[in-house]
Amino acid sequence: MKILIYPGKSDWPSICKRPASDNSDIDPVVRNIIEKVKTGGDTALGFFSEKYDGSAVKEFRVSEAEISKAEKLVPENLKAAIKTAMTNIEKFHGSQISEGQIVETYPGIRCWQRNIPIETVGLYIPGGTAPLFSTVLMLALPASMAGCSRIVMCSPPGKNGDLNPLILFAASVSGVTEIYRVGGAQAIAAMAYGTASVPKVDKIFGPGNRFVTRAKVMIQLDGIPIDMPAGPSEVLVMADKTGNASFIASDLLSQAEHGTDSQVLFLTDTSEIISEVKSEVEKQLENLPRKDIAVKSLGNSMLILLNSIEECMEFSNYYAPEHLILSTSDPMSLSAFVKNAGSVFLGRYSCESAGDYASGTNHTLPTNGFARSYSGVTVASFFKSISFQEVSENGLKGLGPVIEQMAAAEQLQGHKNAVTLRLNSLKNV
Amino acid sequence: MKILIYPGKSDWPSICKRPASDNSDIDPVVRNIIEKVKTGGDTALGFFSEKYDGSAVKEFRVSEAEISKAEKLVPENLKAAIKTAMTNIEKFHGSQISEGQIVETYPGIRCWQRNIPIETVGLYIPGGTAPLFSTVLMLALPASMAGCSRIVMCSPPGKNGDLNPLILFAASVSGVTEIYRVGGAQAIAAMAYGTASVPKVDKIFGPGNRFVTRAKVMIQLDGIPIDMPAGPSEVLVMADKTGNASFIASDLLSQAEHGTDSQVLFLTDTSEIISEVKSEVEKQLENLPRKDIAVKSLGNSMLILLNSIEECMEFSNYYAPEHLILSTSDPMSLSAFVKNAGSVFLGRYSCESAGDYASGTNHTLPTNGFARSYSGVTVASFFKSISFQEVSENGLKGLGPVIEQMAAAEQLQGHKNAVTLRLNSLKNV
Repeated sequence: MKILIYPGKSDWPSICKRPASDNSDIDPVVRNIIEKVKTGGDTALGFFSEKYDGSAVKEFRVSEAEISKAEKLVPENLKAAIKTAMTNIEKFHGSQISEGQIVETYPGIRCWQRNIPIETVGLYIPGGTAPLFSTVLMLALPASMAGCSRIVMCSPPGKNGDLNPLILFAASVSGVTEIYRVGGAQAIAAMAYGTASVPKVDKIFGPGNRFVTRAKVMIQLDGIPIDMPAGPSEVLVMADKTGNASFIASDLLSQAEHGTDSQVLFLTDTSEIISEVKSEVEKQLENLPRKDIAVKSLGNSMLILLNSIEECMEFSNYYAPEHLILSTSDPMSLSAFVKNAGSVFLGRYSCESAGDYASGTNHTLPTNGFARSYSGVTVASFFKSISFQEVSENGLKGLGPVIEQMAAAEQLQGHKNAVTLRLNSLKNV
Repeated sequence: MKILIYPGKSDWPSICKRPASDNSDIDPVVRNIIEKVKTGGDTALGFFSEKYDGSAVKEFRVSEAEISKAEKLVPENLKAAIKTAMTNIEKFHGSQISEGQIVETYPGIRCWQRNIPIETVGLYIPGGTAPLFSTVLMLALPASMAGCSRIVMCSPPGKNGDLNPLILFAASVSGVTEIYRVGGAQAIAAMAYGTASVPKVDKIFGPGNRFVTRAKVMIQLDGIPIDMPAGPSEVLVMADKTGNASFIASDLLSQAEHGTDSQVLFLTDTSEIISEVKSEVEKQLENLPRKDIAVKSLGNSMLILLNSIEECMEFSNYYAPEHLILSTSDPMSLSAFVKNAGSVFLGRYSCESAGDYASGTNHTLPTNGFARSYSGVTVASFFKSISFQEVSENGLKGLGPVIEQMAAAEQLQGHKNAVTLRLNSLKNV
């Protein structure tokens, strides 16, 4: 990890620049996969599955029998843990649902808004070494709570053609209505355009490798919405002299083990703590099973000494981290100054993994500085808001002339006529 | 207008297909403009402004003096009308702002969410024949209410290099912080990447021609968010035997005059009303200043007879109209069945132009079927939601083992360690 001592503000842009995200090498590959699946459907899907996942899939849809079988393979104590996490996620996400009230904006004119679920949503769950069943919960639970009627999930199969039982179990308890064993950019294309096997969905969610995330960004060219663009995962830990070096090191490492391109930053106003954190990281790293990955991502990472906690917060807002841990003496007061972050953890016992699994907040969050303009996934990500209005006779009598004037000034006579005709009919009564 | 009598459901997909939106002809042009502005900054911006707007712009930023001058050119009665509309828009949009409460998801674990304004937003306002100052209100007011600190606006100048005084006035009263005289795809690129004159923004909003809307969709490839993709404007009017043919015709025409590619649909369960509406449209069309435009868009339009109002609603949800007018005997009950629409107007006095200007709802709405997954602009479009959590000692003692189990099952030992270390330290106390 690089140590930076009092870097000047002119250096912040280069410090905050994320590890390169040039996609020119994979863009043609992803574009080709999308085109082929769009036109070739299941045949193309089978071709790319065999090519990239090494599995000749006969039936994309996972059967009920397979799901039931998976359920039996999950140990009871893990089921109980998942149940607890689900309860917390549902409690927090439930607090996000509020129906708009009817507002009388003008005498006789009432306006309101209703949240209506997006009918069919698609969730992508990565495969690979670690079975990320927690991501299934983080996407499918809010989708279920929003009331989406079809919740489609795609995830790449292993060489034997099966999905991990934990992924299948999480999907079945959190409301996924159909599961397909297909991964990569081809899965995103299948959900975007539909094939004979995989339904076309109205919005696509979930993390993935570079090919998957690039495919998600590209399908937006055809107007298909996604949760957010994505980059490598990251954490920024901020601490003053009250910070616990051992806890901080464990948080940095829990992020560093995610992938070789992850980035972890530590900011402090206290020079002593820098070397303590550094040696704790080195010590804890030794026993980490994913040490090789963590070593590489620590190469992208920095310990930064700044002049004050205020300056640390300013830097953090500039960087816009996915996860922000405030390990300071008064994190609650400090948290009022957070402007750009995905999810924020207050105090020394609020480790990132609490939010990753079970505190109740969502772990699908904006990376790569996208926290400046994107939110993490909420129940609202699965809604659209429709506005309604009711104009009474009296409302039109009062407001009609305002509308007529504005329409005339915009030279839209037809817009004006729609009011004038109605006002005239009311005069004649 | 084409008349369709009892079309079968198998025909709905072809009926609901929007007028072609093939962009292959303009994609290379737009891509070139974006690339040139990204690398060439103001020089490229000047080049494209002269090429497309026919105006050699010396200073992109509109001065305070020009804005004050414009203010004097707006008639007092129009200013008063705009003020009324603003009050209604603020009332309705104000009802959309609600802060999340703190939720104790588990004993000792508290989670909450805060809405934080996106710092810098960019608004695009089209130029052309009609000065769409109402769109300035519809974008800048919610941005101001959200608390965005920089509200940047771009709009193409006339041949003389000036912006319309109404547009400048609306911008100055609704909180726009800086105005630039630049239009087209080049304006979108300037706001997306920044030039010496035009600041880089965090999110881009607003309508425009095909080049503008295509540029907006394309900059998403670089992770810059937009309000929504766009297509031609549209209205669907639904009426039973209580519908007033003259009112309905005026609503159809107010949409038809927007542009030659607009589409208007009329659905009913009552055959008599079809011919009444048709002849009213023809009659009212005669005196419309924008008749030439309306005639063309009526060519894309249809009067459709279906078996029941229930079937009309089913069709409407399938079509997903930008504007939906319910001119039936009990529109309130019927409105409960709306699943896909941008904005809904209830009853015979609720004309679309009320919502276009002054009822208080937003008129920046999803077209082209995008209402299936996108919302119109709300205050939330200018926010991001950040989640916060605070785990106490007791909270971690209780929930820690759940997190440990889940992390271990995902084979992420570092995630587990962050909890284990803390739990061990608590045992030692």
